[in-house]
Amino acid sequence: MKRNLEVVLSPALLPFYEIKNKTVVVIDILRASSSICVAFNTGVKKIIPVSTPEECRIFKDFDFLCAAERNAMKVEGFNLGNSPFEYQNPLLKERSIAFTTTNGTRAIKLSKEMNAAQIVIGAFLNLEYLCNWLKKQEHSVVLLCAGWKNMFSTEDTLFAGAVVENVKTTFDIDCDSSMMAEQFYIQSKINLEQIVRQSSHARRLKSLNVSDEDLKFCLQLNQFQLIPVMKGEYLEKM
Amino acid sequence: MKRNLEVVLSPALLPFYEIKNKTVVVIDILRASSSICVAFNTGVKKIIPVSTPEECRIFKDFDFLCAAERNAMKVEGFNLGNSPFEYQNPLLKERSIAFTTTNGTRAIKLSKEMNAAQIVIGAFLNLEYLCNWLKKQEHSVVLLCAGWKNMFSTEDTLFAGAVVENVKTTFDIDCDSSMMAEQFYIQSKINLEQIVRQSSHARRLKSLNVSDEDLKFCLQLNQFQLIPVMKGEYLEKM
Repeated sequence: MKRNLEVVLSPALLPFYEIKNKTVVVIDILRASSSICVAFNTGVKKIIPVSTPEECRIFKDFDFLCAAERNAMKVEGFNLGNSPFEYQNPLLKERSIAFTTTNGTRAIKLSKEMNAAQIVIGAFLNLEYLCNWLKKQEHSVVLLCAGWKNMFSTEDTLFAGAVVENVKTTFDIDCDSSMMAEQFYIQSKINLEQIVRQSSHARRLKSLNVSDEDLKFCLQLNQFQLIPVMKGEYLEKM
Repeated sequence: MKRNLEVVLSPALLPFYEIKNKTVVVIDILRASSSICVAFNTGVKKIIPVSTPEECRIFKDFDFLCAAERNAMKVEGFNLGNSPFEYQNPLLKERSIAFTTTNGTRAIKLSKEMNAAQIVIGAFLNLEYLCNWLKKQEHSVVLLCAGWKNMFSTEDTLFAGAVVENVKTTFDIDCDSSMMAEQFYIQSKINLEQIVRQSSHARRLKSLNVSDEDLKFCLQLNQFQLIPVMKGEYLEKM
C-alpha cells in the first residue's frame, strides 16, 4: 500500500490531522529549520527545542549554549539568535544547544505532543537528502509549515511544494494543500528569492535590519547531506 | 488611510485575526455560498444559518423550510440539501429557510461570535457585484475560506484569489495568504473547472454521485447582482 503525504499549512491546523505513526517534517525556512541544519553541519552534538526563553536559560547550568529568538530578534542575554551564520561558528563543534524560536520550536513540540512516529527538520539546505530519505523510510508523511504565529507563510509552503514535487510518485497525495503547494513552488522556483522577498516575514526581517544574506542563505538548495531528527527530547544529526 | 484585506484559509485560523470593525466575506463555493446566492436570486426572503440539523428542525414549527447538509449529503427528512439547483425552485419565493451545512454555516456563526462588523456571502456567482460593493463599503476586509472540516480548500482559496485580483488596488494587501491566493487564481483561471475538479471536495462529491452539474454551476462567474448579508440572526438579500 502506498503511503500518504499531506501538507499542513499552520500548526493551528495540525490537530485536525492524525499524525500517530507518521513522519512529520517541521518546516521553518526563515530561519529555524535552516539554522538547525547549519548547526549540525558545523558539528553541534544535539539541540533541545524548548518553549520559552526562561526555560531555555536553565540549560546554561548544564553547559548548553542558549539560543533564543522572539519576533525575529535574538533575545537579550542569550548566546545565539536565529541567524544561520551564527551557527557556522567552529566553537559550536561538539556543543549542545537549548533552542527556542517564535514558530519552529513550537511546531516541533506540538508534533511531539501529538505522538508523531518521527519528527525531522526540513530546509532548502537539505531538500534532496531529506526527500531521498522520506522515500525510503516506512511512514506516511506530514509536511508541517511552522508559519508565523499560526498564519500561512509563503516560504514554508514553497518548501513543502518542493518536497511534494520531488517525492510525489512515491506517495498518495490527495489533499488540496499539497496540490496547491506544489503548483505554488513550480510556478515560483525560477525566481524563488524574489517571491520569498515579497513575503511578510522577509519584509519583517528587513524592517528589523536583519541582513538580506540570511534570506539568500536559507534559499540555497542541497548544501547539506544531513537530516536533523528528534531522538527523545533532542534533535540529533541523521 | 487605505483599508486592509486579508485571506484566512480556514475557520480554525480565524481566532488569530482581529475581525472587529471588519467586513467578513464567507466563502464556501462547493456549495453553501453558491446555493445561498441562488436562493436569494429565486426570491427567498431570509435564511437563518444554524449549527446543527437538530436546531434546524425546530424552525419547521415556524413555517421555515429546513435545509441540512452533512458530509456533502442532504440529511434525511429535510426539505432541502445543499445543491444549488434545489434553490431554483419557484416555490421558495418569499419563504424563509433554516440552513445548516458542514462548513459554511459554521464559518458564518464563528464570524458573528467574533463580532465582525458585517458578514456577507461570496461566490463566483456574485463575484463582480460583491467586489464592487467591497470597494465602496467602509471597512477592512477578511476573506474567510470555509474549507472542509478546517482544512484548506482549493475552490474557496481560488475564489479568495479572484477577489484579491479584482480589488487589490483599493486595499492594502500584505498577508502571504492573499498573495498566494491571487497567484493561485491567476494561474488557474483559464482552466478553473479542471483545477477544481481535481480538488478533494469535488472528488468527494463525485464519489457520492453528486451531479457534475453542481460543480459547473458553482463556477459560473457573475450571474447574480446580489449579496447575501447578515442582518441580526438572518441572511438577507442586499
